[in-house]
Amino acid sequence: MLEQINGPEDIKRIPEQRLPQLAEEIRKFLVEKLSETGGHLASNLGTVELTIALHRVLNLPNDKLIWDVGHQAYTHKILTGRKEEFDRLRMEGGISGFPRRTESACDSFDTGHSSTSISAGLGYVQARDLKSKDYTVVSVIGDGALTGGMAYEALNNASNLKTNFIIVLNDNNMSISPSVGGISSYLAEMRTASAYTGLKTDVTTALEKIPGVGKGMVDAIRKTKSSIKQFVIPGMFFENMGITYLGPVDGHDIKTMTRVFQDARRVEGPVIVHVITQKGRGYLPALRHPSRFHGTSPFEIDTGIPKKHTKPTWTDIFSTVMRKMGDREPDVVAVTAAMKEGVGLKRFANMFPERFFDVGIAEAHAVTFAAGLSLGGLIPVVAIYSTFLQRAFDQIIHDVCMQNLHVVFAVDRAGLVGADGRTHQGVFDLSYLGMMPNMTVMAPKNIWELSDMMKYAVHASGPVAIRYPRGEACDGMKEHRERIEPHKAEVIHRGEKIAILAVGNMVSTAGEAVRDLQRQGINPTLVNMRFVKPFDKELVKELALSHDCLITVEENAISGGFGEQILVYAEEEKLKVEVEIMAVPDQFVSHGSVKHQQEITGLDTQGIVSRILLHERFHPKEKIDAKECTNEEESLSEEKLENSKR
Amino acid sequence: MLEQINGPEDIKRIPEQRLPQLAEEIRKFLVEKLSETGGHLASNLGTVELTIALHRVLNLPNDKLIWDVGHQAYTHKILTGRKEEFDRLRMEGGISGFPRRTESACDSFDTGHSSTSISAGLGYVQARDLKSKDYTVVSVIGDGALTGGMAYEALNNASNLKTNFIIVLNDNNMSISPSVGGISSYLAEMRTASAYTGLKTDVTTALEKIPGVGKGMVDAIRKTKSSIKQFVIPGMFFENMGITYLGPVDGHDIKTMTRVFQDARRVEGPVIVHVITQKGRGYLPALRHPSRFHGTSPFEIDTGIPKKHTKPTWTDIFSTVMRKMGDREPDVVAVTAAMKEGVGLKRFANMFPERFFDVGIAEAHAVTFAAGLSLGGLIPVVAIYSTFLQRAFDQIIHDVCMQNLHVVFAVDRAGLVGADGRTHQGVFDLSYLGMMPNMTVMAPKNIWELSDMMKYAVHASGPVAIRYPRGEACDGMKEHRERIEPHKAEVIHRGEKIAILAVGNMVSTAGEAVRDLQRQGINPTLVNMRFVKPFDKELVKELALSHDCLITVEENAISGGFGEQILVYAEEEKLKVEVEIMAVPDQFVSHGSVKHQQEITGLDTQGIVSRILLHERFHPKEKIDAKECTNEEESLSEEKLENSKR
Repeated sequence: MLEQINGPEDIKRIPEQRLPQLAEEIRKFLVEKLSETGGHLASNLGTVELTIALHRVLNLPNDKLIWDVGHQAYTHKILTGRKEEFDRLRMEGGISGFPRRTESACDSFDTGHSSTSISAGLGYVQARDLKSKDYTVVSVIGDGALTGGMAYEALNNASNLKTNFIIVLNDNNMSISPSVGGISSYLAEMRTASAYTGLKTDVTTALEKIPGVGKGMVDAIRKTKSSIKQFVIPGMFFENMGITYLGPVDGHDIKTMTRVFQDARRVEGPVIVHVITQKGRGYLPALRHPSRFHGTSPFEIDTGIPKKHTKPTWTDIFSTVMRKMGDREPDVVAVTAAMKEGVGLKRFANMFPERFFDVGIAEAHAVTFAAGLSLGGLIPVVAIYSTFLQRAFDQIIHDVCMQNLHVVFAVDRAGLVGADGRTHQGVFDLSYLGMMPNMTVMAPKNIWELSDMMKYAVHASGPVAIRYPRGEACDGMKEHRERIEPHKAEVIHRGEKIAILAVGNMVSTAGEAVRDLQRQGINPTLVNMRFVKPFDKELVKELALSHDCLITVEENAISGGFGEQILVYAEEEKLKVEVEIMAVPDQFVSHGSVKHQQEITGLDTQGIVSRILLHERFHPKEKIDAKECTNEEESLSEEKLENSKR
Repeated sequence: MLEQINGPEDIKRIPEQRLPQLAEEIRKFLVEKLSETGGHLASNLGTVELTIALHRVLNLPNDKLIWDVGHQAYTHKILTGRKEEFDRLRMEGGISGFPRRTESACDSFDTGHSSTSISAGLGYVQARDLKSKDYTVVSVIGDGALTGGMAYEALNNASNLKTNFIIVLNDNNMSISPSVGGISSYLAEMRTASAYTGLKTDVTTALEKIPGVGKGMVDAIRKTKSSIKQFVIPGMFFENMGITYLGPVDGHDIKTMTRVFQDARRVEGPVIVHVITQKGRGYLPALRHPSRFHGTSPFEIDTGIPKKHTKPTWTDIFSTVMRKMGDREPDVVAVTAAMKEGVGLKRFANMFPERFFDVGIAEAHAVTFAAGLSLGGLIPVVAIYSTFLQRAFDQIIHDVCMQNLHVVFAVDRAGLVGADGRTHQGVFDLSYLGMMPNMTVMAPKNIWELSDMMKYAVHASGPVAIRYPRGEACDGMKEHRERIEPHKAEVIHRGEKIAILAVGNMVSTAGEAVRDLQRQGINPTLVNMRFVKPFDKELVKELALSHDCLITVEENAISGGFGEQILVYAEEEKLKVEVEIMAVPDQFVSHGSVKHQQEITGLDTQGIVSRILLHERFHPKEKIDAKECTNEEESLSEEKLENSKR
């Protein structure tokens, strides 16, 4: 049956009674494809029927369907003509793992970060009404995303609406980790409450279904004014905000959902449809371990076991360090935002449950909460992905740096992140943290240095951020393990003429480049900066005086990054040295492998070698052919190429 | 009686029946002092009794009292030994208008931005419990601040607590403008509900007080299970989240509040005390015009009229431009975050109510909402202060820039802001907006250029930000009004040797510096950059080739700012020119006049003149005495001096 689905209209031609079979085919398709490519499996297995029901009711692309976060939109992609593309899901040139307006007119809003869909949907609704257009707007948001404050800000605003706006609450009791907090408990209570309550022309019908509410009470309520009536039905939390509540509905019952969505379209005002889904449904390993299968690498279908065992990641190292630190440092506590597994705090949480705080998808709160913990005498380690920490930009400045509080930021997934693509690139943190007064920013070259830096940070004062990348950790350069001294860099190799100032994971990359160059008779100095802010001015000055050229290498945006700090310093000190910056150019970097992304941004060994070979005056006497250069121009054209294809 | 109050314990020695008299004395004191210094009047008049009641119950500094935003903490400052300092409120060297831990041990958390107090308080509570300390934590948050998502994130987390945490909801139905959204309507409903409900040992007693709820209903409810019971009382919204609700309480009745706070301390878990206060109470002009008296300049006590009529501000100009634009451009809509008056959108809102959106203190939502409006075919102008727009850093990148949507950002209060001090400085926007791919950033030199830039921005494509300062707008340089061309700068004066590249309000400052220097025989070129990103590379290259030195001048942090972009460009192009950056150094700038702040950061006429006179080689043949230089060193030591005083 899946063969008949090639565009958004095709789903409507299939008889309703055959839809469950289609759902099973889609699940099989997803498991098979993702076992090869990897991707977000568990959430997509949960939304198959929900997506089918929405597509039956809506007319895409005229109607607007907005997926919050967007990692659950695979079925939507299948139903809108993109099923053939799943072999190259999240690969360079292939389709994104998230909605992308450039991929399909049926994608109404690009997403990736959480809790944005109600805001975006409300924007569409207000524009529709002002421009007298006629279309339906549906925002699909998970219960996890509902722990994000932005969703609440949007709900608070949606309540003013007099026209239709459908919010589908896709409730599986999970973000990546299980959802947390009062809202979550509240939803859990509703989940066990009555079935779909229907359009509340008469709330009392609904009331009578609630266990424990007798006929006498209903009669009493009938006599009271309507605002009081509303206090006694599920969804009151939303109704209190002025939003009609329908639900809960079984999110795997296409027929009922279709009917409810049709009802929801007739509501004049904002309406929440509360849909209960099961993360990982239909594939036992994912059902049993939804966190493990939230985002997965390729796996064996029979067992769910990953096909390839990888070396320990940076996150694994952080995880081990935190576990050991937990033993030794009783004041160390850990804070994360719905990413216990993602950031590697699961073991810490198990061993020290009272010292672990998962605040939900609430980065802003996480940071200010940590400021309070710090003032209360603890040493909070806030572990959040670089891209998500952007959500707390203001709080880091205003609540941590301004009071110069001792808060440690473990900035995971910093730099290029690969398959998750542009929405998840961690290429701004050196810039946004670097501009904050009082902030210390560090980056480790290898696993031992991450460990050393964590210990340093916990015993330092003021705010300290340590940024490290996604993926396999560097276990090379073990022989270089000088003690971490405040704001001091580490010289890896003393050469001549050119000094490479490398940050974090770029140290080992640059190390390979140096070996390559040495074979060609060029012998650059290599420095592991360690501290991006404040950096080792003394050493930089010394190198500037003894070399002709300083080349900075960082996996971060050029604007406001490490290289610019060196440039400013060189100008301030009137150092007669050439400075060149190797960094991510001023553009968004699409999905693909990290290797590919490093290649197109010039941040791989070859890129560094080529950049240095451009300087002919540093070549040895015997002329050497420069290999082809991968510079910013090239990455830009690659970017253009990719955009033009869509 | 006020004379007896010199420290936190003194309030407890005053007999309860005399407290209302004290409250009146404090009000009189506040009106008199603020009529001279200016400051946040209306909110402070509303919190006199609330503060007295809290201080009667709490033991400061052992207990922790956290004021959200903090502009309502004047009475708190008076009661904690700072009343003598009110003559220099918000002035350089004087006390801050916000809580500052360096001022008093009774200030538990520095604030300035909204909606942080519950997060910070929760941090204190968790630390207290982990470290087995014994103190009470109270966060005082306004109903306006409750429209900020962060407050909700924190409430969602507070619900897990098993130990005491008091949240005082100071509800005056206002942020700076009247509060908006569903939550606000909900609170309004409660405000008219029953009086203080007492500790709900028996909820039914409370129920019977609700109008419309008869004895029959109460009987029925008594039989149902407790979760259902709770649906029928005020505060259900909070109770749903797992937070005990007490209230509403009259916020001007010290005796009752004192009793309720004592009750609240006995709750084992989080508790909200809903206090109803009146903004501007006790001073008729403020009571009638609470927005006007939110933050006020010095005024005549009898009439409330400002003592000094000021020239139009940048905000006034924006206001006029928007009103005219509203007529001509039907697709232009305006979005602001609880700052209708502050950003100058009152007139637009009155004339085009359906095209104006005040989203509450919800900057993150505002931006993503604007992204939706843009995709729906409108041209949103998002007007938010520079410092508050930091709250939407991620949303601007992720929801606007990544999709390259046409959203115009009117970034008000950019640069140094004066009396509001460090929490409100708008000195990061050129950096945080500048690092975003696809973003255009502009800054006008005078009122006509702000108007021209707004028109340009509305007809441009992609995201465009225009940043302009707080305070009186520049109406000089009228003769320079070249048409705005994409990414082109405007040459104000062609001189020699030195070229000053000035941004926004620094153009007129640099213009004065040029005139001063010309009198001394030095004749620099002066350029109004207009576009900070992308800037006029062609012109910069030409100037680099024809001058010895480029000096950039911007009222923004050095890190990631305009100057660094010029440095990078000069390095990339291997331009043989010296580049010097004049910008705000890497430190927080405390309250004081803007003039003073410009002086200590070197960003005034004298600072520019001095910087250029440092270059002896540019001096004319006759030797000129350089005036004393105000450079970064000096501002740094001034900062240290100020800190050491506290």
